[in-house]
Amino acid sequence: MLINQQVFRTIWPTEVIGSAVNSIAIIDQTKLPHVFEIVQIENLAQMVHAIKTMQVRGAPLIGAAAAYGIALAMQQEASDAHLQAAAAQLIQSRPTAVNLAWSVRRMVACLQGMPIEARNSGAWQEAANIAEEDVAQNQAIGQHGLSLIKNLYQNKTLNILTHCNAGWLATVDFGTALAPIYAANDAGLNVHVWVSETRPRNQGAALTAWELAQHGVKHTVITDNAGGHLMQQGLVDMVIVGADRVTSTGDVCNKIGTYLKALAAFDNNIPFYAAVPTPTIDWQISHYQAIEIEERHGDEVAYLQGLAADGSVQNVRVIPNESKTANPAFDVTPARLVTGIITEKGVFAPNVLKNCK
Amino acid sequence: MLINQQVFRTIWPTEVIGSAVNSIAIIDQTKLPHVFEIVQIENLAQMVHAIKTMQVRGAPLIGAAAAYGIALAMQQEASDAHLQAAAAQLIQSRPTAVNLAWSVRRMVACLQGMPIEARNSGAWQEAANIAEEDVAQNQAIGQHGLSLIKNLYQNKTLNILTHCNAGWLATVDFGTALAPIYAANDAGLNVHVWVSETRPRNQGAALTAWELAQHGVKHTVITDNAGGHLMQQGLVDMVIVGADRVTSTGDVCNKIGTYLKALAAFDNNIPFYAAVPTPTIDWQISHYQAIEIEERHGDEVAYLQGLAADGSVQNVRVIPNESKTANPAFDVTPARLVTGIITEKGVFAPNVLKNCK
Repeated sequence: MLINQQVFRTIWPTEVIGSAVNSIAIIDQTKLPHVFEIVQIENLAQMVHAIKTMQVRGAPLIGAAAAYGIALAMQQEASDAHLQAAAAQLIQSRPTAVNLAWSVRRMVACLQGMPIEARNSGAWQEAANIAEEDVAQNQAIGQHGLSLIKNLYQNKTLNILTHCNAGWLATVDFGTALAPIYAANDAGLNVHVWVSETRPRNQGAALTAWELAQHGVKHTVITDNAGGHLMQQGLVDMVIVGADRVTSTGDVCNKIGTYLKALAAFDNNIPFYAAVPTPTIDWQISHYQAIEIEERHGDEVAYLQGLAADGSVQNVRVIPNESKTANPAFDVTPARLVTGIITEKGVFAPNVLKNCK
Repeated sequence: MLINQQVFRTIWPTEVIGSAVNSIAIIDQTKLPHVFEIVQIENLAQMVHAIKTMQVRGAPLIGAAAAYGIALAMQQEASDAHLQAAAAQLIQSRPTAVNLAWSVRRMVACLQGMPIEARNSGAWQEAANIAEEDVAQNQAIGQHGLSLIKNLYQNKTLNILTHCNAGWLATVDFGTALAPIYAANDAGLNVHVWVSETRPRNQGAALTAWELAQHGVKHTVITDNAGGHLMQQGLVDMVIVGADRVTSTGDVCNKIGTYLKALAAFDNNIPFYAAVPTPTIDWQISHYQAIEIEERHGDEVAYLQGLAADGSVQNVRVIPNESKTANPAFDVTPARLVTGIITEKGVFAPNVLKNCK
């Protein structure tokens, strides 16, 4: 997608300057929307760091990032022991997103059968395959979601609410929840996006708003608290979110606060969709209480990052020194509140989700 | 209540230094929790400014502040014309809260019948009456709410979720939603408060957390997004919020985001209470769609105030320069989601709320 009229992906292989070895380039998403910076990742430890600190984030993107992490590890040393150790380290870097473990397991399965000397080039090829498949999946999600939007469209502005960032920044390209919106916008439909800011990390305000602005899609940033009121007022026609994990029965695990939006959509008869590539569906889990919910550092609640008057990016403290915080990173929206799951294979109601297996 | 072990109210009459005329002292709530500062209000224009900029905020407190605003106006000039002009200016300073208009109308009714030369002292007396009645009402709310808490109490930590600030800072003293919590805490019950930060102005993180910390009540700050998840996990036993206006049928107009908490409480069978003095009940309105919802400045969404690393209080921008914002300040929770209204006259289910008239 476009940044300053230039085509970018969120992650791509490149070369370490002055060397024949590969490295990975990423957009540092912790500094957006105020600073646009590309970071070079040269080894496994740096990739684990980038995933943990959310320089790369979004379930599909961290799947691709982990695959490239394995490739960086194989470039360093292609032994079985190192492959297993790298896989374990990457899987532990973020516990909730299913894509990460799925992608690492796929890399291990692909490489285990190879002779050690073939593993370096084999790993880079398989990681590239994972990245390209993500792009193709997201384009297909965009087309299936576009059909839903066309069905609701009545030749006036169609208002779509989204939460967090499941845009192209959360994937290798195109996005999941935003792919249908980009497709509709590019098809000339008049769409407007309500962007909930998505505390604690503000990925809505910082990332979704930024990428929509770069692509020229009409949007308005709101607090996480405002979504329900806008729905009551008839100002939301549909909700599309991404997901970090979807159970086989259609429960949607996504950024904290998604459940509240889904309750409000249900209460106001507004269709609520999650857009995910099928690798995000965890066929092992049928009940959402089996999903481990990541508790992230309390400083994400206590501090907030923004652009200060002097042009510097600063963290400011927003709670008293004496107060504690809690920071569950995800919640689960029960399938009963979900209208459908938009996948690269089509749109499925939760009760028939197994048809896309 | 206590600040640094010293007893305070949120508003009190005092004297202009070196003069015989009265002024009003307030705590500047826009600077909490980082800076504790008392501001002197010497005339009507300053009081209108303090209300508009939310140096004083919270429905009961702005009722008292508006009453003292009339007293400051009468001190200046006690004519009928000036009384009417002052009333109009104060009523327009914040459109949603019913207490403000109620309090101003009460002052006008009281003063209209008086000879002009009696109006100055009469106004100060009536404003003091309004303030004292608020204190007494809140103490009564605390006792009625304490009974509800005792009914739910099972000799282990009772977890109460609140939204925004309906603590003593929102009133003259004691608070509305927090009055039962202070009463329970002071009675030796083991209560813990989930404080939702309450974007855009963060009154939860900034004010509720601060006043609970000052009083020594156990609490944890969470994002507005986290409440639903905590309820799903069984970590919330009851919800108590304040309200800016309650309709005669029990619809609750309160800080934006309250509706989402109420939906989640209902979905998880958790009792949801609004605590209000009866002047907050608008007997003229039976349906919530008749309530005017204040749209506040978009910069409240675009910027956020906090304590920077250098110890200064700074505003930082959290959205891209290219993005628009929307900022509805309140939402309405339909009565069907409300377990009861805690008033100074007792606790009433929405369908029998008229019994407290």
